[in-house]
Amino acid sequence: MGSPERSRLGIICGRLTEETCVRRMVVTLRGGDLSRLRQLNSLTAIGMLRASGPLTLSALAERAGLSRPSMKEVVDELMELGWVEETPPAQGTIGRPARRYRFRARSGYLVGLDLGGHNIRAALSDLNGEILAEARQPVQPDTPLPERLATIERTVASCLALGGKTIADVWIVAAGTIGVITTDGRIRYCAAIPAWTGLDLAGHLRRMFPCEVIVENDSRLAARAEAVRGAARGANDVVFLHVGRRMGAAVIVDGKVHRGFGAAAGEIAMLPHVQWTEASEHLQNCSIIPEDTSPAEAAGYTLAAARAGDPVAVAAVERYVDDLAVGTSAMVLLLDPQVVVLGGGFSRSADVLLPPLRERLERACIRMPEVRASTLGDECVVTGAIDYAVAHLDQQLFTPDAPLPTSR
Amino acid sequence: MGSPERSRLGIICGRLTEETCVRRMVVTLRGGDLSRLRQLNSLTAIGMLRASGPLTLSALAERAGLSRPSMKEVVDELMELGWVEETPPAQGTIGRPARRYRFRARSGYLVGLDLGGHNIRAALSDLNGEILAEARQPVQPDTPLPERLATIERTVASCLALGGKTIADVWIVAAGTIGVITTDGRIRYCAAIPAWTGLDLAGHLRRMFPCEVIVENDSRLAARAEAVRGAARGANDVVFLHVGRRMGAAVIVDGKVHRGFGAAAGEIAMLPHVQWTEASEHLQNCSIIPEDTSPAEAAGYTLAAARAGDPVAVAAVERYVDDLAVGTSAMVLLLDPQVVVLGGGFSRSADVLLPPLRERLERACIRMPEVRASTLGDECVVTGAIDYAVAHLDQQLFTPDAPLPTSR
Repeated sequence: MGSPERSRLGIICGRLTEETCVRRMVVTLRGGDLSRLRQLNSLTAIGMLRASGPLTLSALAERAGLSRPSMKEVVDELMELGWVEETPPAQGTIGRPARRYRFRARSGYLVGLDLGGHNIRAALSDLNGEILAEARQPVQPDTPLPERLATIERTVASCLALGGKTIADVWIVAAGTIGVITTDGRIRYCAAIPAWTGLDLAGHLRRMFPCEVIVENDSRLAARAEAVRGAARGANDVVFLHVGRRMGAAVIVDGKVHRGFGAAAGEIAMLPHVQWTEASEHLQNCSIIPEDTSPAEAAGYTLAAARAGDPVAVAAVERYVDDLAVGTSAMVLLLDPQVVVLGGGFSRSADVLLPPLRERLERACIRMPEVRASTLGDECVVTGAIDYAVAHLDQQLFTPDAPLPTSR
Repeated sequence: MGSPERSRLGIICGRLTEETCVRRMVVTLRGGDLSRLRQLNSLTAIGMLRASGPLTLSALAERAGLSRPSMKEVVDELMELGWVEETPPAQGTIGRPARRYRFRARSGYLVGLDLGGHNIRAALSDLNGEILAEARQPVQPDTPLPERLATIERTVASCLALGGKTIADVWIVAAGTIGVITTDGRIRYCAAIPAWTGLDLAGHLRRMFPCEVIVENDSRLAARAEAVRGAARGANDVVFLHVGRRMGAAVIVDGKVHRGFGAAAGEIAMLPHVQWTEASEHLQNCSIIPEDTSPAEAAGYTLAAARAGDPVAVAAVERYVDDLAVGTSAMVLLLDPQVVVLGGGFSRSADVLLPPLRERLERACIRMPEVRASTLGDECVVTGAIDYAVAHLDQQLFTPDAPLPTSR
């Protein structure tokens, strides 16, 4: 479906809450513009289908507070425009079941990127965030910029090919990366990737991909993924620990990933007192690690040895968790979250890390939060990038006159 | 105005945002209950008058999206019920100006309490939070519980007498105190007041005052006051430093004072690494303080000497600010607030404290927030308690079937 129809509808619908729909609807009612009311009824219908899955006409009408004939007009128009489709009748159904309608989530596609120090990951999803293809290529923190950018382009191309799509099908590319990122997608500071600091990353990606590009801090994306589909689902106040060779954090307050006034929130690792910058060295440089172990495997070796009861490895883990616990306690004491999620690469060894972490938090904190392991592992950032793109799509809907994503 | 009229209207209106009104209105419209629609129109009118001050009938009608005759009916009924009154015409007005209406903020009263280690403060306000009287009595952290409770009762009585009211006029008593307080108003932990830990403070206050009683952490109340009428007005993301002989903190995230999942947020002082528990000793025990100085004046003496350039006092202030800056940096790095407000007793010496604090934050933080001094001084908690009562009143409105405050 091309741009003209989309701009005729004038809106793209996300996972609307009923409330947000209503808010916009009332603003419009006040304006008294009936054609916009019609548009907003369409919007309400899309929102409900997106949030609740397939619905019958009667269910739609009842939820929207519209008459059935009015809702039928709305749905017919949406089907004509390609936004809504009928679901195929369930197999083995007897008689003529009521028709059910659903959001056509494949009228466009989203790409999520994780631009890490050691890996470039890409994921392709539909407009509901359902992931259809993934691709990964290793890089190094010191890979020169042109090569790093070329790897990004290649990984996306391969992911699109795998999903049977082209970049022209993509509405939004959402990229997550390490570092402090400005609201306009420049990298203010990045200790982990030397070529990154000062880079206009969004600018580079926009030249690469002819669609909307958004850039966000990787730990915040990972926290979002945990909230949308991971270990933090259903929790409103969350501290997310992004632990691996690099230590990061992000917080969810009152159901929202907290970005901060200058998009620089979550950088507790920068406080020398928490000793997070060197914390992973305890695991990376443990004396029991065989000499030929690659840096990517070193910490995993120590964690596995600790799991098997090696006393040197256990001591290294204890020292690591000591450091991890200081920053975590600071966040828990300040925010009193419901849940702490241990995510990132080391979360694969959550069975080794969580018991000593819990023990330290019990001692340091006033109210003990639940401490859970991430279920998303290494995919947390790229998954969060997809979820960020979905949320961005939703938000555009409620920003009157904002430019809409187009696949051109 | 007594309870029957109030329950006839069925609502008490706070400082409504237009949006919240609209949200409830639409929910009702869906229910299709016309008498509730009428009630909600009343609510919208009260909300607008409370938020915007006196308005003419035309202005009210236009803002609510109602016809002038419909709005006139609403306003007439509200005047009959005692919720709304006509403003007296401005002096020197020529001709017959359009009538203007306002919320009758004195249909009930609110009491705010600051139950500190060294002082009991009470304030009386109208339903808009305008303070009409204040009273204070000193206590000691180790004052026995019965005496401490008697002092609270006496201070409130004196404050009410000063304002020409009785406890029967009061709808809500909101109390702030030191410590970790459960959502039902018990004190889970309080290092500063020995008699406090484990106390059912709300229970004691309820036996004392025949109206609704709510209890909250004092630093969070002070932060609220800064947001409503102090140095943090207009800022959505705020770190509030509550500094005096005791150190506390509170944060505002996305415009809301953050309470935490178990109402235990803001307790960064409990982290040993920030050294906040002993920080004020640098000021309290400076060697230049004359022996006969009372503990209440000791820190002030050091701060004044530092202002005058005494090198020993300056060094003490530097050490104090070193400690203050660690916890502050942790909060700023984690939350990236727009503003840091220095409040509490020591904020009277903000001219001495802010320059060295800013210098340390500049070094430690990624994005430097504005650092401002509180303008509320020692009144910050009691003022915040009033603002909390106002917010509580607002909230009750939007909780269907919640019990309404009554003055009995």
